[in-house]
Amino acid sequence: MELLLGIDGGGTGCRAALADKAGRVIGRGKSGSANIMTDIEGARVNILAATRQALQDAGLDATAETSISAVLGLAGANVGDNAPRLEKLLPFARARVKSDAIIALYGAIGDADGTVVILGTGSVFVTRKAGHIRTIGGWGFKVSDLGSGARLGRDLLEEALLAHDGVHSSSPLAEKTMAMFDNDPHRIVTFARSAGPNDFGTYAPLVFEYAENGDRLALLLIERAVKTIEEALDAVMPPEKGRLCLIGGLGPLYASRLSPKHRARLHAPLGDALGGAVKLAVELFAHAEADHG
Amino acid sequence: MELLLGIDGGGTGCRAALADKAGRVIGRGKSGSANIMTDIEGARVNILAATRQALQDAGLDATAETSISAVLGLAGANVGDNAPRLEKLLPFARARVKSDAIIALYGAIGDADGTVVILGTGSVFVTRKAGHIRTIGGWGFKVSDLGSGARLGRDLLEEALLAHDGVHSSSPLAEKTMAMFDNDPHRIVTFARSAGPNDFGTYAPLVFEYAENGDRLALLLIERAVKTIEEALDAVMPPEKGRLCLIGGLGPLYASRLSPKHRARLHAPLGDALGGAVKLAVELFAHAEADHG
Repeated sequence: MELLLGIDGGGTGCRAALADKAGRVIGRGKSGSANIMTDIEGARVNILAATRQALQDAGLDATAETSISAVLGLAGANVGDNAPRLEKLLPFARARVKSDAIIALYGAIGDADGTVVILGTGSVFVTRKAGHIRTIGGWGFKVSDLGSGARLGRDLLEEALLAHDGVHSSSPLAEKTMAMFDNDPHRIVTFARSAGPNDFGTYAPLVFEYAENGDRLALLLIERAVKTIEEALDAVMPPEKGRLCLIGGLGPLYASRLSPKHRARLHAPLGDALGGAVKLAVELFAHAEADHG
Repeated sequence: MELLLGIDGGGTGCRAALADKAGRVIGRGKSGSANIMTDIEGARVNILAATRQALQDAGLDATAETSISAVLGLAGANVGDNAPRLEKLLPFARARVKSDAIIALYGAIGDADGTVVILGTGSVFVTRKAGHIRTIGGWGFKVSDLGSGARLGRDLLEEALLAHDGVHSSSPLAEKTMAMFDNDPHRIVTFARSAGPNDFGTYAPLVFEYAENGDRLALLLIERAVKTIEEALDAVMPPEKGRLCLIGGLGPLYASRLSPKHRARLHAPLGDALGGAVKLAVELFAHAEADHG
C-alpha cells in the first residue's frame, strides 16, 4: 500500500496527516515542537510520534512507516543544510523537507499563481508566478518579520514609552498599555529584556482591538505595518496578478486594512498548511508515479 | 582629611577619580564592569578595586576609604531598588548612587540649564530646566534607545535584507552590508539571533561613513534617527532654551546632521561623566558642609 504523509511542524508543535494516493486523509496525529534550527533530533522524535499516531488513527501498524512518501513543511527548512540532514534521519521511503511557507502556499492557493502572506508571531511572503515560487521576508523578529505580531507588539511598547516620556501624544491604547505594566516604565524594561517574539506578540491583538474604536496610536501602528506589507506585496507580484491570501492569526485582522487594489484580489484560503503538505505530497509522489507508471 | 570620590561605571568598565574638597583630582583608578542590574555584588567589587587604585595613586592607604564621600554614576541606578541597595553595601562614609545620565549632565554642562544626549550603544536624554532634572528615553535596545548605535545598526541589517528581497531599492551601503555577510541572508539571521546591542552597534559607524558619500540608504537611516532625536529634544526643552551637548561615540557624528534650530545651541561638553561625578560630589558634600560649617 502506497501511503502519503503531510507534516506541518514548527516551534509550537507538529501535526501529521496520513493520506492515500489521491490525497484523501485517512489518519491524523500531533505532537510537540519540531524546530530543526535548534534541535534536529528532538524534531525527528516529534515528527515520528505524530506519524505513528496518524498510522494508528488509520488502523495501520507502525512498521508501515517505511512505505510512506512524506512532505514535511518545517520552519527553518531553508537555513543551512537542515533539510537534507533531516531527510536522511527519517525512516520513510521518501521524504522532502520544505519550508513552512511553501506548504502554506499549497494549502491556501493550491497550484495557482498568487501570493500568500503568513501573518502570525512572525511574517513571511510566498508567491508563485508562472510556476516559479519565491519567498521573501521571514528573516526573524530582530531584523525582519515586518507586520508580524511580534513586531507590532514591540512597536506598541516603544510607543507606550514615548507617550510616557511625553515625546509622542498619548492615546487610550498607550494608557492601557502602561496600565498593564502598573504605569511603571521599568516594568516594561524588565519584560523586554527577556522577551522573545512570542512574548511581544501577545500585545498585537490589543492594537487591532483599539483600532476598531479609532484609537489614534492603534491606527498609526497598523497603518505603518500595512505599508510594509504592501511594499512587499508590490515587490513580489503586481496587484492585478493572482489571488492573495492573508493567513496566520493576524491575517484576517489585516485583510480589511489593506488598500483597495490589494483588497480586490483577496481570497479565503482553500485549506491550511497541513493540507498543503498533503497536496504537495500528491503532486511530488503520486502524480510523478502515475506519469511513470 | 575629607575625600571626595567620583565613579563612572557601566557594563564595560568602571573608572574612579579621587578629589579634594575643591574637586581637584588627586588620584585615578579603573577596573571591570559595574552593572548593578545584573550583578550588584560584582559591581561592588569592581567599584572598590577602582577606588583602592585611586587611593594608591594619591599615595593614600586603603583604610582611607571610610572617610570618602562618593557620587557613583551607574547604568541601571534608576531601576528598582538598585541604588539604595548598593549604597548600603559600600564602606564609604557617604555614598549617593545616581544614573549614568545624571553624571554625564553634570560633566557636560555643569549646573547650567540645558540638555545632554548620550548617543552610544544606547541613547538617553537628560535635561535641566530651572534646576529640575528630567531623564527620558534610555529604556533599552529592544523598546527604546532611539538613535542609538544599536538601533542604527539593527536598522541597517533590516534594510539590507529588504534590499536583498527586492522590497526596497539597493545602495552601495546595502550591498556592502550584504557582502559583509557573504551575500547570504541566512548569515544575518544567524548573527541577529544571538546579537545584543553591542553587536548591532558595531554596524552604526558604517552608516555615517557611507552618508559622507551621499549613500541614499545611509542618509535615510540617519534622517529617521535624527527625527527621533529631535522629537525627544522638542519634548524635553524648547530649542531656544539652554545649551545642548551630544556626547557618546555617535554624538559628534550626529551633531552636524541636526536641523539648524538645534545646531544653533550645540556646545562642546565641558568635561566627561567621571568629572561630572566629582562635580556632583563637590555640590552634594563639600558645599553642603561649607553651608553648615
